[in-house]
Amino acid sequence: MSLLVVGSVAFDSIRTPHGEVEGILGGSASFFSVAASWFSPVKVIAVVGDDFGDEHLEVFRLRSIETTGLERAPGKTFRWKGEYVGDMNDARTLDVQLNVFQSFSPKVPESHASSEFVFLGNIDPKLQLHVRRQLPKARLVACDSMNFWIEGSLNDLKETLREVDALVINEGEARMLSGCQNLRKAATEIQKMGPKIVVIKRGEHGVSLFNNGSIFSTPAFMLEEFKDPTGAGDSFAGGFMGHLARSGDFSEENLRRAVVYGSVMASFAVEEFGLKRLLGLTAQEIEGRVREFTRLTQFDV
Amino acid sequence: MSLLVVGSVAFDSIRTPHGEVEGILGGSASFFSVAASWFSPVKVIAVVGDDFGDEHLEVFRLRSIETTGLERAPGKTFRWKGEYVGDMNDARTLDVQLNVFQSFSPKVPESHASSEFVFLGNIDPKLQLHVRRQLPKARLVACDSMNFWIEGSLNDLKETLREVDALVINEGEARMLSGCQNLRKAATEIQKMGPKIVVIKRGEHGVSLFNNGSIFSTPAFMLEEFKDPTGAGDSFAGGFMGHLARSGDFSEENLRRAVVYGSVMASFAVEEFGLKRLLGLTAQEIEGRVREFTRLTQFDV
Repeated sequence: MSLLVVGSVAFDSIRTPHGEVEGILGGSASFFSVAASWFSPVKVIAVVGDDFGDEHLEVFRLRSIETTGLERAPGKTFRWKGEYVGDMNDARTLDVQLNVFQSFSPKVPESHASSEFVFLGNIDPKLQLHVRRQLPKARLVACDSMNFWIEGSLNDLKETLREVDALVINEGEARMLSGCQNLRKAATEIQKMGPKIVVIKRGEHGVSLFNNGSIFSTPAFMLEEFKDPTGAGDSFAGGFMGHLARSGDFSEENLRRAVVYGSVMASFAVEEFGLKRLLGLTAQEIEGRVREFTRLTQFDV
Repeated sequence: MSLLVVGSVAFDSIRTPHGEVEGILGGSASFFSVAASWFSPVKVIAVVGDDFGDEHLEVFRLRSIETTGLERAPGKTFRWKGEYVGDMNDARTLDVQLNVFQSFSPKVPESHASSEFVFLGNIDPKLQLHVRRQLPKARLVACDSMNFWIEGSLNDLKETLREVDALVINEGEARMLSGCQNLRKAATEIQKMGPKIVVIKRGEHGVSLFNNGSIFSTPAFMLEEFKDPTGAGDSFAGGFMGHLARSGDFSEENLRRAVVYGSVMASFAVEEFGLKRLLGLTAQEIEGRVREFTRLTQFDV
């Protein structure tokens, strides 16, 4: 079943203790769609500028990502510059140029209106809702958000949350949105806002899934080395939603599997700067890491 | 098989967002031995002062903990005063009075010299080594340590580490001891110092076990509410070592099981101030939470 994502396409400049890159392809929609493309056909809705060339479009084509909804606007593509220091747990934003993203008003092409699986990447909750309402046949709509919207557009965000099935969000932002320090309570409060599935991303500490009354927690895949955390959360969401879209199964058991696939995709993403690792994968590598992930976490009492 | 612990017995004064207590029984040896006592007979070596009354001794007796090695010295028992704020991840020490603990020189009673399972709680690494060398029949010796010794007594600590089988340590302290940010690398460096088993405690994020080339990671049990994190690490160690002592099995599979028992005991400890919850448990409650822990973490891909 096909999966639609709306989000950002960006050119990122990133410095980490492991190196530095300038203006490489990134953004939530890019990481999500490349990660998800290993599991399911993906359609992307985003905006790019004049500086988005054929070589960039080729990245999406390479993964058979449907780009009819990739709008071209006059001006420059969204740019983000940031750095990670020490344990690379937190990004420090050095510069943001919204450019064409500033006036982005996502349009759902008619050919996409019957999409059943939807991921509303981290953009203005008003736009998320606008897209969501153009997708009446959606069976599972998930969204992301961030501190910027929780602080500045809480009412809009709450309106969006009422119409989505799942929220995929960082630990700190789950606490901020709910006003609860305790994650179980935070998830319960968020569930009251609308989404019955709450997925809390805890970075290097793993992921917790709250689905109705059930809770599932899993550690992150433990890498010997990683280079760049940018896009880890969207790659997680891509693996998570990609697996759900390919299986069409929302059982607790299958949601847990989706968390594992998401965790595995995030673990690949951070091994290289940008999309490099996700683009160069093989299906065998993904299944191999799923098996390693299982060995890392399983016990028998 | 019986288990010996050397560590501190203390009177703790603790403030958390959930309340405040004055001078309650605590210390690494107390938490460890009470937690471990649910799995195996325990012998404790520690020092207390004149203010340690029958009502305190009764706590150990209640759990059939062997107190021949509980030395009484003139003066006051070790006292610690601290508080936890916000998410309660870090303790802020407000006052420490070492008292009788300052000149503590642990003696292993002759009747304890054949102990096979040993936990060297977080005390001066010189004393840990002194105890370890009086236990020639030990089959599994684990120790804990902290930033204070890593910073101030690194050579002594390294000497101790050469003669222990397992180190049970906090995440930040593993990084400090190894000089590696990455936990896999940190564990590998620590293994080179001696202990082939490295257990890294990540607080509310769970535990990682490194045993030879194998890695196991597990989240913490997710509580709706907890009141006081004091003693969580020692309670973990108590469940971990207690299970190993009762089974006498150091296979990877059984070490993983021991991590689960440790995690479960830590999750109980934090539900109440001090030892209260650990003392009031039943074997059924422990097994019930082990099953819940399994449901929280298991998946099938």
